[in-house]
Amino acid sequence: MTKYKINIEYDGTNFVGWQKQENGISIQSSIEGAIKKLSSENVTVYGAGRTDAGVHAKEQVAHFETSKDFNLKNIRDGLNQHLRKLPIAILNVEIANKNFNARFSAKLRSYQYKIINRRSPLTFEKNLAWGIFKILNIKDMQEAAKLFIGKHDFNAFRSIDCQSTSSIKTINDCTIQAIDDYILINVSARSFLHSQVRIIVGTLVEVGKGKIKVQEIKEIIDCKKRNRAGPTAPAHGLYLIKVEY
Amino acid sequence: MTKYKINIEYDGTNFVGWQKQENGISIQSSIEGAIKKLSSENVTVYGAGRTDAGVHAKEQVAHFETSKDFNLKNIRDGLNQHLRKLPIAILNVEIANKNFNARFSAKLRSYQYKIINRRSPLTFEKNLAWGIFKILNIKDMQEAAKLFIGKHDFNAFRSIDCQSTSSIKTINDCTIQAIDDYILINVSARSFLHSQVRIIVGTLVEVGKGKIKVQEIKEIIDCKKRNRAGPTAPAHGLYLIKVEY
Repeated sequence: MTKYKINIEYDGTNFVGWQKQENGISIQSSIEGAIKKLSSENVTVYGAGRTDAGVHAKEQVAHFETSKDFNLKNIRDGLNQHLRKLPIAILNVEIANKNFNARFSAKLRSYQYKIINRRSPLTFEKNLAWGIFKILNIKDMQEAAKLFIGKHDFNAFRSIDCQSTSSIKTINDCTIQAIDDYILINVSARSFLHSQVRIIVGTLVEVGKGKIKVQEIKEIIDCKKRNRAGPTAPAHGLYLIKVEY
Repeated sequence: MTKYKINIEYDGTNFVGWQKQENGISIQSSIEGAIKKLSSENVTVYGAGRTDAGVHAKEQVAHFETSKDFNLKNIRDGLNQHLRKLPIAILNVEIANKNFNARFSAKLRSYQYKIINRRSPLTFEKNLAWGIFKILNIKDMQEAAKLFIGKHDFNAFRSIDCQSTSSIKTINDCTIQAIDDYILINVSARSFLHSQVRIIVGTLVEVGKGKIKVQEIKEIIDCKKRNRAGPTAPAHGLYLIKVEY
């Protein structure tokens, strides 16, 4: 068996998410279908991060094993050929070490959340960014973002569906860039709780609107209550942008 | 009568182009429909540039007149409300001078052509950029681009449908930026021949592929024959980005 590591880009708009589900087309099952067409084998593709419905990836990482040996460029081009009707692109294929696991070997996952802050509705990026009409206070958001960095109990920042036994996580980076109308929120950690990035973003937007004060962030983290944090930001502004090993 | 100047952004993918036509929905007719809903008047909207089917605008400019006086923000928000199902956004509305004409008063039109140069197919920007798989020689393209700047007879660079009496035009800017996989070709002039930017881009891509040499560009311009220039680049990579008055 040969183990392959693949890097994948996708527009998550019309998928049920990364993971196979009964109720629609997933990115995982689409790639498994393309591998089957290429190699005639039933394989399972394991992803580094299980992105939710509507969430995008600039660079998801996954692994799979086949009993056949393919030229790496032929796998990339062959899979892209079979995926051509879908907004999924295989960016790179390499041979992975036997011990490599896209999910468990990951050391750092980086997400970017894209907001477009303007009065006019979105056109090109309607499903690719969160359009916020009220002008946000970016300096306050930047100050608040710093308070998420480090090791904290993020119980206030996880979905009620989160199955993780511990809610303690370490955020390595949480910074905000403002470029023209764009507000880009970068968040990195080894791993995240369910909806953690989207709840952090939703809370930062409340800070930007003046509804939550910068100095309240610490209190909200400490109280560990989901209802004290902001709403969950929409899925369609979120991108998995890098996974490091 | 009050004359209004509006700035418009649109994703041209599913339109027949700026201009009203029998065979589908145009941006012009969509905006006229929204104005009618707002003011109950039949008005004509005059655009600065008649973008073709599939061509996008980051900032088209247009004017129209109504007998009603509206608050400028109410026009912007009202038109956006009526256009909400379409990928058209009114960015700004201002009162124009009586003599202002979006088309004839324009002093400089700037277009940007977006190429993504990589082996993998496009996902997010499938209809928003030209995906070219063969790696292009950008230095040669940049050298060739300079040769279009200035006053030339661009007969070799216009569509056979072009109705302009003269094919002499002055290109103010023709420069290429390469950022990661993106190749952005910026072309500005007071006015253009039909398909001129797309034929210049198609020719520059042939230079990038090594099929046309940099030093041949002058010959191609001088011979004035359409069949010596490169193919017309696809509409979906082209953006009208600015109109100056």
